[in-house]
Amino acid sequence: MINDPKKTAILSKIRRPGDVRALETDQIDVLASELRDVIISQVSCHGGHLAPSLGVIELTLALFRSFDLERDKLVWDVGHQAYAHKLLTGRADRFSTLRQKDGLSGFPRLAESEYDHFGVGHSSTSISAALGMAMARDLKGEDHEVVAVIGDGSLTAGLAFEGLNQAGDLGRKMVVVLNDNEMSISKNVGALSQFLSRKMTTPFLQRLKADVEGLLGTIPKIGDDLAGYAKRYGDSVKSFFTPGILFEAFHFTYVGPIDGHDTAQMVKVFEEIKKLKKPVLVHVMTKKGKGYQPAECDPSHYHGVGKFIPETGLARKFSGSGLPSYTSIFGSTLCALADKDEKIVAITAAMPEGTGTECFHQRFPERFVDVGICEQHAVTFAAGLATQGYKPAVAIYSTFLQRAYDQIVHDVCLQNLNVNFFLDRGGLVGEDGATHHGVFDMSFLRHIPNLVVMAPKDEAELAQMMATAFAHDGPCAMRYPRGTGVGAKVSENPRRIAIGKGELVHDGEDAVIVTLGSRVYPAMEAAMELEKTGLSVAVFNSRFVKPLPAKQLLELAGRFDRILLLEENAQAGGFGSAVLEMLNEENVLSGKRVHQLAIPDEFIEHGTQKELRAMLGIDKAGIKKAVKKLCK
Amino acid sequence: MINDPKKTAILSKIRRPGDVRALETDQIDVLASELRDVIISQVSCHGGHLAPSLGVIELTLALFRSFDLERDKLVWDVGHQAYAHKLLTGRADRFSTLRQKDGLSGFPRLAESEYDHFGVGHSSTSISAALGMAMARDLKGEDHEVVAVIGDGSLTAGLAFEGLNQAGDLGRKMVVVLNDNEMSISKNVGALSQFLSRKMTTPFLQRLKADVEGLLGTIPKIGDDLAGYAKRYGDSVKSFFTPGILFEAFHFTYVGPIDGHDTAQMVKVFEEIKKLKKPVLVHVMTKKGKGYQPAECDPSHYHGVGKFIPETGLARKFSGSGLPSYTSIFGSTLCALADKDEKIVAITAAMPEGTGTECFHQRFPERFVDVGICEQHAVTFAAGLATQGYKPAVAIYSTFLQRAYDQIVHDVCLQNLNVNFFLDRGGLVGEDGATHHGVFDMSFLRHIPNLVVMAPKDEAELAQMMATAFAHDGPCAMRYPRGTGVGAKVSENPRRIAIGKGELVHDGEDAVIVTLGSRVYPAMEAAMELEKTGLSVAVFNSRFVKPLPAKQLLELAGRFDRILLLEENAQAGGFGSAVLEMLNEENVLSGKRVHQLAIPDEFIEHGTQKELRAMLGIDKAGIKKAVKKLCK
Repeated sequence: MINDPKKTAILSKIRRPGDVRALETDQIDVLASELRDVIISQVSCHGGHLAPSLGVIELTLALFRSFDLERDKLVWDVGHQAYAHKLLTGRADRFSTLRQKDGLSGFPRLAESEYDHFGVGHSSTSISAALGMAMARDLKGEDHEVVAVIGDGSLTAGLAFEGLNQAGDLGRKMVVVLNDNEMSISKNVGALSQFLSRKMTTPFLQRLKADVEGLLGTIPKIGDDLAGYAKRYGDSVKSFFTPGILFEAFHFTYVGPIDGHDTAQMVKVFEEIKKLKKPVLVHVMTKKGKGYQPAECDPSHYHGVGKFIPETGLARKFSGSGLPSYTSIFGSTLCALADKDEKIVAITAAMPEGTGTECFHQRFPERFVDVGICEQHAVTFAAGLATQGYKPAVAIYSTFLQRAYDQIVHDVCLQNLNVNFFLDRGGLVGEDGATHHGVFDMSFLRHIPNLVVMAPKDEAELAQMMATAFAHDGPCAMRYPRGTGVGAKVSENPRRIAIGKGELVHDGEDAVIVTLGSRVYPAMEAAMELEKTGLSVAVFNSRFVKPLPAKQLLELAGRFDRILLLEENAQAGGFGSAVLEMLNEENVLSGKRVHQLAIPDEFIEHGTQKELRAMLGIDKAGIKKAVKKLCK
Repeated sequence: MINDPKKTAILSKIRRPGDVRALETDQIDVLASELRDVIISQVSCHGGHLAPSLGVIELTLALFRSFDLERDKLVWDVGHQAYAHKLLTGRADRFSTLRQKDGLSGFPRLAESEYDHFGVGHSSTSISAALGMAMARDLKGEDHEVVAVIGDGSLTAGLAFEGLNQAGDLGRKMVVVLNDNEMSISKNVGALSQFLSRKMTTPFLQRLKADVEGLLGTIPKIGDDLAGYAKRYGDSVKSFFTPGILFEAFHFTYVGPIDGHDTAQMVKVFEEIKKLKKPVLVHVMTKKGKGYQPAECDPSHYHGVGKFIPETGLARKFSGSGLPSYTSIFGSTLCALADKDEKIVAITAAMPEGTGTECFHQRFPERFVDVGICEQHAVTFAAGLATQGYKPAVAIYSTFLQRAYDQIVHDVCLQNLNVNFFLDRGGLVGEDGATHHGVFDMSFLRHIPNLVVMAPKDEAELAQMMATAFAHDGPCAMRYPRGTGVGAKVSENPRRIAIGKGELVHDGEDAVIVTLGSRVYPAMEAAMELEKTGLSVAVFNSRFVKPLPAKQLLELAGRFDRILLLEENAQAGGFGSAVLEMLNEENVLSGKRVHQLAIPDEFIEHGTQKELRAMLGIDKAGIKKAVKKLCK
């Protein structure tokens, strides 16, 4: 699409941000339309974050018109909305490589462009990062602008609040653009979002009138006087009580709400606020998916979307396995277990669809809580529930649970509470890349006392581990990969498994592969193929990172001199590391050759899961190669 | 003191919370006085959290009078203020064992008392936990009260905001008592704290009148320029509201501020709000250190304090080494380095004194930032500074840095920024116990790509590592213990050390102890003593957890068949685990006996550092024993 010069007459001439500033005003709307077409076309072919990027095209253009990205700093929160930004900063010709291996990242990255001023992926970092840049500017005696663009969903996270609270206190010149689309990935939750949405509606104004009068009436003596003012000037006073008062409380000057699809108006506002020498919050109203009918109608679905047919918005025929995802198996099993156990409650952090808990929400609305983008609160809230005998299921992607590490240690595990963590997207997630891979969870969880850490080999084992976790009187965590299972039949009534016991899934004589989770089946396939070459390799599914099936592992160590420790997690401190510690402590390593096949000590970029696993040598071919080398 | 029945006539009869409710009103003030005496006496003898506990004696009594702790739930935030709570819940007779090994914990603990409804230690968890309890109550169809008591300092943390935001949204009946003493551990920071301090004073009310009049006159006409509008709008609205507006925005009913030392008034308020069926915030004004003159005058010092003479408040003669603490060496070295490098900035999270950065604050006020109790923001803010060429020193206790794990991964290390982490209180901290030990840092840091992780053997090496970190163009973390060093001379101009190189500090023939940080000197002492028994033991100071001094370690593995891996960190995934992974990968473990001596996979309770190290066998005696066993 980008290659069709007729359809990108203006965009194709934009090489750097300054080119946008140089455009005539009447070219801006055309450029917006071109950007929209290119983004829809690209995402329809390869998938990606469609709705967020479509929602901020005019905002992006207004920012590029008003600010000079050669000197001003611009921080996109989360960054899944930065496709227009990428297209306008010299990356249009590579835009077709978006989210593909060795291509453009789906998020802003310091290393990718001089105009990506801060790398993002996780939410709610922008205000803090921008404040750091503002302080640096002031220390240097420079006078450029610093702008953070943050969604109303991202604003619910504690980190954003911490940044806002300090930015207001320090009083340094900076601009926070609140991109208010009344959504995080799903519909927003939290008192704040209701507060923000108290727009100039009539019921709001009526309530406000009562609020103001009530407030003024509570002030002794002077109260009557002021209430009188309020009454006389009632309607006028009320218009001041927009969401702005919240931000004013944080010492921000509040401007808005303004139309986030009216580039000219936004430019006018930005030009004015540049004159202010203090923190300013500009409240911009946008529509997620703007300009693409299917995305406007179902922004949750089109938040991050697979390939689709642009004309209809319908998903392109899926050439995959057609099997249900781990996510959906988790969701349906959770419902089945909750049917029989009224103590099970489900908690998601703004991702009911992504984590598969939406069906639970439908079935058990009173036992379901979406806490918003608040992973820390999700975990401590779960701990509170567990002290009263409930069994919370905390369903959070592996990479996002990193934000609740302290709460897992301090609030859950130290108190040995029956809180159960379900880490979807464990291991390599593919196209979302370095910010989103869930490759540290085994390492950051396994040293926490009292915690049981598991990884299922397939969807049936996931269900069994879930049943096991709720029955275990203490904290459990399990991680499972993005994508579908292998088609294993999932029982309606999954049996519990023994904690700390694994299973020999394939026997052999020359070597043993000790693994778990997503690597069990590839290991078995590798073993089958190696058998044909004369190498007899056993495969042990450890199931548990902790407690390890020590007795079984020691038996294996007694039988085999060649041991491959395989996992889809960082090698450092992960599963293999745990096995190694145990075997060493038992003093059985002498004469053995043990090799860890895991993710090396580096951040892994984006690409398909298949490409990345191949690159890292943890797919079937890599496993075969490693076993052969080990047995040489 | 508690044993003197005349001085605790009332307290000595309190066995459970109900006994407080049964007292006559006129006995309450006497009981307050008795509690104060007992707490001052106990802390003067053994140290502890004095000022916070003195500040909430009347509040505690009012809560015990108004709520029924047999059914109502009470969550103390942080918990360092819960001494009166402990004394009133059947633990008075054991109060003299406070913070001592096998004695009472310094914090509420689920396992210690049925009246400790949630275990705490880290700040800002109370609202989330209480909300979980409120949901549990509603699911069960019960009707008891749930109360969270949170300080204004704790309220600055994002987690508290997340809890508040959702509590308001869910609308469940609960009480949040805001214990406002205008302090966290040190003086509070953040826009919020300034906002809270806008009380209903007479000058405030006078300003309010003028402001409202002004406000009504500044309604923007069509065509008004925005900057002028924003300015007038901001200035006039700002002082319009009381702290209540903020909480009302979160859908809390706000009551206050009320006098937190007037038990009767508080009881009256609590009785009233119990009638409400929604979230209520009671704003209570207290004085930290109340009733003890020295603590009232210097609440920061008496926040957590060592032994002192009650009559004067002066510290008891210290029988220790008289050497400077690691904390102070860190502070002075940071100043010395910053003198020569203007890119160094210092960041603390509400602990300028505790982290030794207060001297930096005095010397370089413009390069110093106290972010409040906001570890997440501290790290992302630092990342923002580092993108602009600054070298932030993030000084946070090991245990509190757990709260910023994701920001270390996602904002700092993924972007390979020159942010340097200084983890004070690494290892066992002693009396603060399980919530505060810094024994996981090596495990939660070492698997993060790009991060250099070190631990100095003494104060001179700390200074050298600091110089090394700022010179290294990438993230570094170092951890050092609570307490004093060994008296090593610290250079004004510390030399840099080679990254990934250790040092053989003692040679030997029979075995080698591979260690770092706080365990190097005890290992050397053990080696010296073992030498007298005929066992010749080398000691290698690895200095680095990552990158490991692999070449040197391989040489040692070539020379020694007996290797003790020693650290003051969790064994799982820690330093020894890293060495083991490397030695295994290099295939040099055959014929070796390698033993990890580290902290086992359990939470360690409180006691002196000396007692705990002895208990865990990582002191000199334990090391000797382990080496002997290894060499048998």
